[in-house]
Amino acid sequence: MLTRTSTQSLTGQLADRLAERIRTRLLPPGARLPSVRECARQQGVSPYTVVAAYDQLLAQGLVEARRQRGFYVRDSAPAQEGRLPNAAPMVIQMMASRVPADASSLIRSMFHRPSDKPQPGMGVFPPEWMSSTFMPTAVRRMTSTAALQELSLQYGEPSGDAALRRSLSNKLVGINVPAAPDQIVTTVGATHALDIVSRTLLRAGDPVMVEEPGWALEFARLEALGMRILPVPRRADGPDLEVMAQYCQLHSPKLFVSVSVLHNPTGYSLTPGSAHRVLKLANEHDFHIVEDDTYSHLAPEHATRLSALDGLQRTIYVSGFAKILAPNWRIGFLAASPELKERLLETKLLATLTTPTLFERALSWCIDQGQLRRHAERVRIRLDGARGRAVKLAMAHGCTFASEPAGLFGWVDTGVDTDALTQRMLDQGYLLAPGSLFHARRPPSTMMRINFATSQDAAFWKVFSKVRAEL
Amino acid sequence: MLTRTSTQSLTGQLADRLAERIRTRLLPPGARLPSVRECARQQGVSPYTVVAAYDQLLAQGLVEARRQRGFYVRDSAPAQEGRLPNAAPMVIQMMASRVPADASSLIRSMFHRPSDKPQPGMGVFPPEWMSSTFMPTAVRRMTSTAALQELSLQYGEPSGDAALRRSLSNKLVGINVPAAPDQIVTTVGATHALDIVSRTLLRAGDPVMVEEPGWALEFARLEALGMRILPVPRRADGPDLEVMAQYCQLHSPKLFVSVSVLHNPTGYSLTPGSAHRVLKLANEHDFHIVEDDTYSHLAPEHATRLSALDGLQRTIYVSGFAKILAPNWRIGFLAASPELKERLLETKLLATLTTPTLFERALSWCIDQGQLRRHAERVRIRLDGARGRAVKLAMAHGCTFASEPAGLFGWVDTGVDTDALTQRMLDQGYLLAPGSLFHARRPPSTMMRINFATSQDAAFWKVFSKVRAEL
Repeated sequence: MLTRTSTQSLTGQLADRLAERIRTRLLPPGARLPSVRECARQQGVSPYTVVAAYDQLLAQGLVEARRQRGFYVRDSAPAQEGRLPNAAPMVIQMMASRVPADASSLIRSMFHRPSDKPQPGMGVFPPEWMSSTFMPTAVRRMTSTAALQELSLQYGEPSGDAALRRSLSNKLVGINVPAAPDQIVTTVGATHALDIVSRTLLRAGDPVMVEEPGWALEFARLEALGMRILPVPRRADGPDLEVMAQYCQLHSPKLFVSVSVLHNPTGYSLTPGSAHRVLKLANEHDFHIVEDDTYSHLAPEHATRLSALDGLQRTIYVSGFAKILAPNWRIGFLAASPELKERLLETKLLATLTTPTLFERALSWCIDQGQLRRHAERVRIRLDGARGRAVKLAMAHGCTFASEPAGLFGWVDTGVDTDALTQRMLDQGYLLAPGSLFHARRPPSTMMRINFATSQDAAFWKVFSKVRAEL
Repeated sequence: MLTRTSTQSLTGQLADRLAERIRTRLLPPGARLPSVRECARQQGVSPYTVVAAYDQLLAQGLVEARRQRGFYVRDSAPAQEGRLPNAAPMVIQMMASRVPADASSLIRSMFHRPSDKPQPGMGVFPPEWMSSTFMPTAVRRMTSTAALQELSLQYGEPSGDAALRRSLSNKLVGINVPAAPDQIVTTVGATHALDIVSRTLLRAGDPVMVEEPGWALEFARLEALGMRILPVPRRADGPDLEVMAQYCQLHSPKLFVSVSVLHNPTGYSLTPGSAHRVLKLANEHDFHIVEDDTYSHLAPEHATRLSALDGLQRTIYVSGFAKILAPNWRIGFLAASPELKERLLETKLLATLTTPTLFERALSWCIDQGQLRRHAERVRIRLDGARGRAVKLAMAHGCTFASEPAGLFGWVDTGVDTDALTQRMLDQGYLLAPGSLFHARRPPSTMMRINFATSQDAAFWKVFSKVRAEL
């Protein structure tokens, strides 16, 4: 918030804030700044302050004035020229004006919190939920000089550490996914696993079915790879099979990307009946399915997985540990049929060669000792409590839930345009996850995603109510 | 080698050896096994043994008999169907028959040594050259519980650890590459950096110039991404500028991939004059250059870099630490202009999100303390000695050097087909790096690459001479 007691002038504060948003592309190239009057009203400063701040941005070459049309963020020419095809512009509201942005603003928001306040838009648990004594212990077990030399001085197994692949295989058998250690490839987080799958199975221009609403990064990545995205509405019991059947008739898609359990952002989990029908369709129309089980650690015990029903014939199972253990260890993995695994491994090698063994070995220990399971249980119990409180707060502040609250995320209808809401909340130090981000074409939306673990702060909801009322 | 004293029958030994080669694709789908008579002669066993071994492979479903034409490795249908376009088959000689293979056999050979013998075909220093006390020390400094929680429980900086980027910036300034920490992005090894660059700057079908001979993995990766490879002959002073100029006229390539210093496999280093002309051409025809400086740690002090002359305007600098410190830490990086860096960072995020901070922080410490520099000096001195001995041995055994021996690799003319040589040497427990692998279209070649650090073993050269004489 702009403050008169700061050592910096109001003009300087406003200019810096806008410059920062331009730099991080929350205000992307081509975006129109709000009118001087509108900005002055929003920020509670005089029009002179706004004019002076815009002048500073002009002098820094960050914006340009267009005659009688206002101020626009400058196109940084080289950055535009090579932008990848089909990277459909993401619509995000900058204060007053709706402007095209790219997916990077969202992605970066995962890493740069706009303030120290709890962030309901976040995609992960707060670090304090994950701190443990077993994790450092696991790492230190691997750091004797001899062990470190052994783990560091060669590239390591292309498929990933053998001990970890055994641990993962056992874990998968526990959820009825029949993956031998040889069918598993470790990756740089689940993101890398999804990237490897699409690079292996698809070529630029190929049609691919993705659940909608869905995880923005997946849309952005497929767009950057030049794929044709076919959005499949996600229902409570699973994907909309009629839409899928139509796509199959019309486009012969090669791949279906699904978060079957605790779907992001709705929290839905696939029913056995729906799973069966999805697989039937896949067999009839010969497409692959990549099942992103990122939220498996939070899932109910008997959740239905496509990979379990299918036995990894045409499904590829993907998961990771960023959500439950240590995001920065960057450990994900995929499991597939023996033939397909070889091709996926080839793509991994071409993209990154191997992955760091030390963390893989440490994770293996955490799994084998039961530490990960107990930790996940504790997190689930804590999340259940947090979810109850967050749901009450959200409903008390005028939100309704579009789906039965479950897992990490709530999918909430605010009744107002959440792109506009997001820009206003940014001024208050909160970054939201507006509904538009979860759609392939990013239409205006009144929905937003909240993280139950970080939405229990009454102060947030108070600010939210106030800003919402002003829209 | 097949041995009668083994607990396993000769038939079983031979069948197992061939099955292993089929599994690792050293014998790829479609490859013809040698005739029974030829195989019996090569392996020094009776034709009955060969027939029995082939029968075992047949029973295992690994090969098929084609009427009057012999035995062929079975196509594993699903693995073939989706093979990426333009993945030009690599020609590799299986004992008697020339057969198509894919690049994975080469890549995998980096990780699976066929025996414990010193491997002149290897691409890295032997682990014993890299063992140190400072590296474990560096890691352990980061493994206190508090430090580990801090480094592990959040995703970390998208661009990479800030301390490491400062260290790298200082290091780059030392070789006149003007990269501020903000212009640097860390990656999963240099391979990942090269992958990010091509994914950001190119689309499927785009023409890209690559030095030839050159690193096989780069050809394979660009092919897998569907790029059109324009091979540029690499001369002692730099790339062939006439060929480049022609490509520019005819194809308007978007990118030139160059290992300017201690080029792999020739050991050539770019002259300042050649560097100047390459940049002039790049400016005239508006293409980017990615400079792969993987061997920088072994380079002479005043080596010429394109990135230094160009000041990172249209060059992207890439390097890593797999060759000098710890291959499994998987730390590489790229440096580019501020605008381009933002786009490259976006690709990193879409592909893998962040990279593990612990090793990055440890590496930063190794650089800042001067440990890496001193270690690299020691390795260089040791390599100089090894090179001298290896050159003598190679020449004494009938090889000639196509280029002045320098750096890690020697580019050697054996006078015989090195694909055939490679298959024969495999039987003796040695995996060579035949010349065909260093060419985009993989024509037959009498060249091979040797690693000076692993080519000092008289036993190897004795076997080499014997096998070579038999061809």
